[in-house]
Amino acid sequence: METERRGRGEARERVLDAALELFSGHGVSGTSFQMIADALGVTKAAVYHQFQSKNDLVIAVTERELGILEERLRAVEAAAGDDTALARAALLDQVIDLAVADRGLVGTLQFDPVIVGVLADHQPFADYVTRLFGALLGEGTDENLVAGAMLSGAIAVGVMHPSVAHLDSADLRDHIQKILRRIIFEGVDTAPTN
Amino acid sequence: METERRGRGEARERVLDAALELFSGHGVSGTSFQMIADALGVTKAAVYHQFQSKNDLVIAVTERELGILEERLRAVEAAAGDDTALARAALLDQVIDLAVADRGLVGTLQFDPVIVGVLADHQPFADYVTRLFGALLGEGTDENLVAGAMLSGAIAVGVMHPSVAHLDSADLRDHIQKILRRIIFEGVDTAPTN
Repeated sequence: METERRGRGEARERVLDAALELFSGHGVSGTSFQMIADALGVTKAAVYHQFQSKNDLVIAVTERELGILEERLRAVEAAAGDDTALARAALLDQVIDLAVADRGLVGTLQFDPVIVGVLADHQPFADYVTRLFGALLGEGTDENLVAGAMLSGAIAVGVMHPSVAHLDSADLRDHIQKILRRIIFEGVDTAPTN
Repeated sequence: METERRGRGEARERVLDAALELFSGHGVSGTSFQMIADALGVTKAAVYHQFQSKNDLVIAVTERELGILEERLRAVEAAAGDDTALARAALLDQVIDLAVADRGLVGTLQFDPVIVGVLADHQPFADYVTRLFGALLGEGTDENLVAGAMLSGAIAVGVMHPSVAHLDSADLRDHIQKILRRIIFEGVDTAPTN
């Protein structure tokens, strides 16, 4: 995921924060630049100064979220042999941590129809997903692509389903980690990542 | 899931079909009763004659989809011993078949924020989910609730993720079935259900 846009300042980050908050309440199609401007107490022109279109905004939101995984993703890609299994388990833990921390937003980020549509046409995102699935599951056979899609859904829905809303985040994280390790990394044990 | 509303005639089914189609393109909040009426070439009053509110419509759409599983769900609940494992595997196959057949709609049905909100407040749906998770995974411990949520997400995203869009439905079904059987029913083999 591109990170070159990082560091363009706080105003941009504030727009992304406000957009995410509004997306999760109204959906992307129900969120206007005017609503984002109103939430921040700035003009619509100030928002357009940061992002030319909703597509740009959606891509930036996604890149910011997934960029968090970049370091561990590279660690898996650089690892070899036994190290790969450990690096994979650490990456999986970070994916789970991120999903649990964002449990109120995951539904929007992964399933909002506008976000799905924008990302489907955005090649860097497709490349990133291929890297992430490959790092977690191995080479991109059809079966591994299906397994990767299923893994991403299992984690996303595992944190957002109404039937788990009563669990606090620490318990939820432990259950998901335990279930996935049993399935994916039988026998691999790593130190907790946080 | 309630099925008492079935059989109230074709007009009702046509409204549900049109609503689903529009929901998947525009989201539920972006779909009006007028749009449904226009799609069917009837008046808005005719649509309101079938459904008093969007909540009613969302619940009816969900009940119709999930009602398809009712027979196999009861078979699991009625089975005992070795039969339970076979009945579970057959239920899981039917869940997978349904998801693959509706692969263009699953995202809307499971993740549209309006549908999620309506169903979160609809006790019969919560009860149905508890039954379905229980039938597939066993008693409702916290870990099984998390596993149930993850299973539902794995199947839903396994059919709708852009990374598997190139697979035809038969191949997709086979991959998902193989992956889940390996995880959930090690050693259980059943005849194909269709």
